[in-house]
Order: sequence, then structure tokens, then C-alpha cells
Amino acid sequence: MVILGVDPGLATMGYGVVSYDGVKVRPIDYGALLTPAKMPLPERLMHLFDGVEDLCKRFEPDDIAMEELFFARNVTTAIAVGEARGAATVAMRRHTNNIFEYTPMQIKQAVVGYGKADKNQVQQMVRMLLGLETIPKPDDAADALAAAICHAHSSRMRHEFRM
Amino acid sequence: MVILGVDPGLATMGYGVVSYDGVKVRPIDYGALLTPAKMPLPERLMHLFDGVEDLCKRFEPDDIAMEELFFARNVTTAIAVGEARGAATVAMRRHTNNIFEYTPMQIKQAVVGYGKADKNQVQQMVRMLLGLETIPKPDDAADALAAAICHAHSSRMRHEFRM
Repeated sequence: MVILGVDPGLATMGYGVVSYDGVKVRPIDYGALLTPAKMPLPERLMHLFDGVEDLCKRFEPDDIAMEELFFARNVTTAIAVGEARGAATVAMRRHTNNIFEYTPMQIKQAVVGYGKADKNQVQQMVRMLLGLETIPKPDDAADALAAAICHAHSSRMRHEFRM
Repeated sequence: MVILGVDPGLATMGYGVVSYDGVKVRPIDYGALLTPAKMPLPERLMHLFDGVEDLCKRFEPDDIAMEELFFARNVTTAIAVGEARGAATVAMRRHTNNIFEYTPMQIKQAVVGYGKADKNQVQQMVRMLLGLETIPKPDDAADALAAAICHAHSSRMRHEFRM
């Protein structure tokens, strides 16, 4: 099973692709889609849409995992992140119905085993669980991988307990 | 010239299509795309994307006008409206580069001639300018038509003053 994790943002959209065989999560690819602030907004959104569509075509993920958003510094940031999520979600939804959202707490719980873990703990565990030599950069890519790992663990739970 | 006006929202996305010959703005169609709250979010966004894409195919607008968003009741609302705008903008951008944003004040100024006009004044002027028998409903459709009218008037200005 291939899982695409996405950490949506307008300037930086992190992504991480992993495979999961029911036991182990293995890294396939990770990175970030970037849109410069001086680019017109419709252009930026189109770039994110195209980028996510391209990831779906390249890696053909079975499932997609995203961090649920319910907090933002302010209304302006919330609108911008919302727009980026909207553009990305449509690209995902054209590829698959299997889109899953997890709260930051669920992701920390799944990756570190502790819902209030800090950013550094999450990044270190992502590195260890995936057998990477260094912490994935940018941070958004590490967060996207964390979402993908969280989904892998949740699918195992669902399977084991026939949920 | 055909102008598509859009008033983006997650539950209700108003649209209004007008033609403009350099003198008069004429109504072609208006209405709203609706997404029920119980529908999963990716489904709702896909529905809006498909709806806007369909409008672009049916009416082949030369230009698209949208109300600029920089205010929302709270962060949760801002995220939801942002997501809807993101999904709609990508559908528009696939059709044309000519996407224009206007502030609520610019729209009121263009439609009523007074930037602080109230909702009812805007709706009455939309009805009169388009020669409609009643005020367009829902309100979101009237707002979308107002954005389209604002863009028609602005294009005239741009043309007359060679801006």
C-alpha cells in the first residue's frame, strides 16, 4: 500500500510518500511544493493543484493522509491555508476517494506515542521509523511523512480490530 | 464579452453570468452551487470544482470576477471559505488567466456609486441594472452578479482611460 502524506500550506506544501506492507513503513519520496509570494494567487493555487496531481500520477497512492486544520494565527493566514488546502484536496479527490484527516494530536500519538510531543520529537521519530540518516527537510516534508506514518498505523489498527 | 461573477462559499457558492457590449450589462444566468454540510469535505470541494468547471464550459466567460476575501467571522469560517475559494479558483484558472478580484467596497462603489452602500441597496441596483423583475436569490447569486457588473464597469474604465 502506498500512502501520500500532505502538509498543506500556500507558500510551502510538504509531501511524503511511503509504502506500508502491514508491518513496516518505508520511505519512497518526500519534498515540498513551493509557490513564491509574488506570484498571483490563482497561479499559486494552480501550481499546488498541478503539483499534487503530478504526485498522484507518479506514485499512485492508495490512500492520502492530511493534517486536519482548525487553528491558524489569524484570519488572513487561515484564508490562505484554506485556499491551498482547497486546491490540493480537489487534485487528491480526482485521484482517489481515500482521503483521511488526522488532528495534530493523533499524528503525535501515532508517531511518538505521546499526543503532546514537541516538533523535534516528532521529527526524530519520523527519521528513526523510516531509517533515514537525517531529519527530512523542510519541516513541512517531515510533517507530511508523519501524517503518512500516522495513517499507516491507523490502517493496521483498523485491520487488526476489524474496525 | 461574457463575465462570470462568483461569490465563493463552502455551503453556498453564488454565480452570475452577464454579457457586456461596452455599454450595457445584460443578464445571462445566475444561481448557486450548494453543498450539504453532512457531505465529506473533499466531496464538497470536488462538487464546487466540478460546478465552476461546468459553468466555464457552458458560458465560456472571457473574464471572471470574484469578491476579495479578507474578513471572516472567525478562523474556522475563514478556513472553510478559503477551501471553497481554492477549489473554485483552480477550476477557473484551468479555463482562463483573466481572474479579477474586487474588494466589497469596490463592488459597492461600482454598482451603487457609494462604497458603503448596504446589502439591500446593492441588491436593488443589481436588479435595476440588469432589468430583472425581482431581486436575484439567493443573496450569494446577487453578490456574484454585483461582482460581474463591477468588473464590466472597471473594464470600461480601463478601456476609456487606456489603463
